[in-house]
Amino acid sequence: MIIGGGEDRTDDKNVLTRFVEIAGGAGRRLVVITTASRVPDKVWEMYDTAFADLGVAARKHLHLDSRADANNPALVAEIEQADGIFMTGGDQKRLMAIIGGTLADEAMHRALIERGAVIAGTSAGASAMSNHMLADGKTDLHPEKGAVHLGAGLGLVNRVVIDQHFSQRHRLARLLTIVAANPHLLGIGIDEDTALIVTPGSGIEVIGDGAVTIADGRDTITNIADLPQHGCPELIDVRLHLLPSGSRYKTIEAPAPLAHFMHIVTHRNTLS
Amino acid sequence: MIIGGGEDRTDDKNVLTRFVEIAGGAGRRLVVITTASRVPDKVWEMYDTAFADLGVAARKHLHLDSRADANNPALVAEIEQADGIFMTGGDQKRLMAIIGGTLADEAMHRALIERGAVIAGTSAGASAMSNHMLADGKTDLHPEKGAVHLGAGLGLVNRVVIDQHFSQRHRLARLLTIVAANPHLLGIGIDEDTALIVTPGSGIEVIGDGAVTIADGRDTITNIADLPQHGCPELIDVRLHLLPSGSRYKTIEAPAPLAHFMHIVTHRNTLS
Repeated sequence: MIIGGGEDRTDDKNVLTRFVEIAGGAGRRLVVITTASRVPDKVWEMYDTAFADLGVAARKHLHLDSRADANNPALVAEIEQADGIFMTGGDQKRLMAIIGGTLADEAMHRALIERGAVIAGTSAGASAMSNHMLADGKTDLHPEKGAVHLGAGLGLVNRVVIDQHFSQRHRLARLLTIVAANPHLLGIGIDEDTALIVTPGSGIEVIGDGAVTIADGRDTITNIADLPQHGCPELIDVRLHLLPSGSRYKTIEAPAPLAHFMHIVTHRNTLS
Repeated sequence: MIIGGGEDRTDDKNVLTRFVEIAGGAGRRLVVITTASRVPDKVWEMYDTAFADLGVAARKHLHLDSRADANNPALVAEIEQADGIFMTGGDQKRLMAIIGGTLADEAMHRALIERGAVIAGTSAGASAMSNHMLADGKTDLHPEKGAVHLGAGLGLVNRVVIDQHFSQRHRLARLLTIVAANPHLLGIGIDEDTALIVTPGSGIEVIGDGAVTIADGRDTITNIADLPQHGCPELIDVRLHLLPSGSRYKTIEAPAPLAHFMHIVTHRNTLS
């Protein structure tokens, strides 16, 4: 469940409600990982209240504050026992510096693949879900060579780059920068209070207030490789898809132009 | 010469300089049509100064303020004698309500087709150049059914809809609304201080500070026809092109994905 940040936590709670449902209902165990945040207790308090409002009794705050924490079997056990794992916003680089390659990281992969637990990430937690992670990048009116930097993410989904707060912060240009320079990666932009729900091996659904934008640069003709740093690339033939809330496809039934995206995101990942 | 508004008039004057060059140089006759504007004298003063700075002596203000003016042979003669015709910003609906279908309108078509004069339009003057004109439309974060209205423009270029101040005002969503509802029209978004120069029968060039965005919805799969008013359409497979300043193509040499756009915009129009 890839959430574009700013999901409602006090009123309709549409996205969080769905998270609880996918986890199996209010009777299941949820863990909230606040590692990305520098104000973890404040963030936890917000989700604690929201999930309590939704009737969840077994909710747990897991602030892994160091790699030692993330390799501590007692703490990792919380992930192993959870039906729903929620990664909050903050800084995706901080999140990955602490949990990348640790037992906690492995436990999340196992939770998803072996147990069918739901893993949600919002904002920084969303960006960290892909193998190639949008680490930081300038938001400008036009694509710009060298203006966006990738890092290594969790790899719960591969061959994509995820950006969040997408329409609200006008981030199409930086997504285009990424697909121009990395045509084998699909760009996925997720709006605030909006989630892309991916069911491995099955299909996708968009819920919430906004839309999901997909930029496919596989066939794009561009001069980015030959440009000086900071140049604006020419882009010919970027395939753009806009999936608003309510869009819902099974992988085997998706329209042909969406097939590549569907295959990539719903592909069952391995732990490797 | 389709200009996205806000072209520099006091410093580098890149776009206006090029307009004068295409008209044949500072020795030629220019006419500035301020009909779109409600402050025509103020607008004229600005261009008067700019073109004087560029060494143009034969520069003329033509404020056609009524359909009677636009059908007045004495006034229309100014267009017939001009090597460069410049339509200012303002309101494209006002411009078309006054000159649409008049002798002035016909004189502009003849100037372009029979005499090879250059016709430039900026902002409202740019939008008015196409046959299907973006009349008005809400700018929002997402495409929205019914949020954009078309009107009849001059038809100096056909099968396109032109939007201006494009990146600066974040107008991609409304361009997508247009191509979703009108897949046979190409959406063209032009940035401020940027011009798309179209040489009929030959090719195109982008100059100035920004870029030209093209949205091609011919192959797009969308549910817009079945949506209620104000709904956000799903869009699958919009072809997007970004041509930054410096992009330049001859129609016969353009990359295949750009061929349709090139054919459409450089097609020699008739007076019909």
